Amino acid sequence: MPRAIDFYFDFSSPYGYLASTRIDAVAARHGRAVRWRPYMLGVVYKSTGYHPLEQEPKRRYMMHDVARCARLLGVPFRVPQRFPAALLAASRAVYWIEDRDPRQAAAFAKACFAAYWQEDRDLAEAAVVAEIAAAQGVLAAELRIALEAPAVKARLKEETEAAIAAGVFGSPFILVDGEPFWGADRLDQVDRWLATGGW
Amino acid sequence: MPRAIDFYFDFSSPYGYLASTRIDAVAARHGRAVRWRPYMLGVVYKSTGYHPLEQEPKRRYMMHDVARCARLLGVPFRVPQRFPAALLAASRAVYWIEDRDPRQAAAFAKACFAAYWQEDRDLAEAAVVAEIAAAQGVLAAELRIALEAPAVKARLKEETEAAIAAGVFGSPFILVDGEPFWGADRLDQVDRWLATGGW
Repeated sequence: MPRAIDFYFDFSSPYGYLASTRIDAVAARHGRAVRWRPYMLGVVYKSTGYHPLEQEPKRRYMMHDVARCARLLGVPFRVPQRFPAALLAASRAVYWIEDRDPRQAAAFAKACFAAYWQEDRDLAEAAVVAEIAAAQGVLAAELRIALEAPAVKARLKEETEAAIAAGVFGSPFILVDGEPFWGADRLDQVDRWLATGGW
Repeated sequence: MPRAIDFYFDFSSPYGYLASTRIDAVAARHGRAVRWRPYMLGVVYKSTGYHPLEQEPKRRYMMHDVARCARLLGVPFRVPQRFPAALLAASRAVYWIEDRDPRQAAAFAKACFAAYWQEDRDLAEAAVVAEIAAAQGVLAAELRIALEAPAVKARLKEETEAAIAAGVFGSPFILVDGEPFWGADRLDQVDRWLATGGW
């Protein structure tokens, strides 16, 4: 198993979605795996009292910019009806699946991003999340029971606290051997860092 | 005179400085001039109650990131002793010089960015600003008198209000024929937009 890089994100983050379409390929070029680590970005916003989408000029620009970036990348993109939203079911499912099969968790997380940002599927709904998981070979009935378990809910809280403790404050946020990169627009630098070991 | 693109910035913005080292070359490749438009970013921060440098993890990351970007660009960079700061004298001087000679104003603004971010010179000091201007062929004595004039002070306020009215909320911020780009990391897209007219 190659050394992994850490990919922190919130499913509700459009720049997280853009990064989700590229991160595995960037890592694979350098023989690296990716640990897909959803966390609750809303906890960061709550602690700082700041949410970028609450500032009208910035919100308007960001939605314009992310659509423009998607076109440039050739990636489908549309704003979901429920946005922004706390998509806890999908996030909790990632860690539950990861404990069983990390590779399946990565594929599931990527499928969730696409389902939300391309097909407007509601990742807060356990039934929707189970259906996406089933398409990845996960036992959907078992997952639906797990999503109600206090330990599974607690796990996402713990992962969120661990992410914040590691300095994560946005989405996407990538740690390469401890080196932090914030934003989908840093993926080229991540690529270069992996190739050169830094500059 | 080629059609100009608008380059909005605050001298106290490190990403504004990075963009200042590239923007003229990007525009010139496409036969375009650049209007250098300093504004008071602090007014935006005050109106939203948000300042990115007041959030410790983000502040720490940004200063790390901007130094890393500077190394990648091969551009000298060091954090000035007085940072962040309201660098009004330099900003006011840009518009006063621009009314006399736009080309000189651009060269002066670029020299100010370098003086602050490479040599730690205090752009809030009229004497320092006049010295930098003199090196660009500006009549320093006349400038120093102008910097005290109410009309020159009012001009920067008006330009700031006009920038905010145009949707500007960060630094650097570039308008290409009305198309907005925020951040030094959007310069490659600006380059492409100028080449293609959009995508």
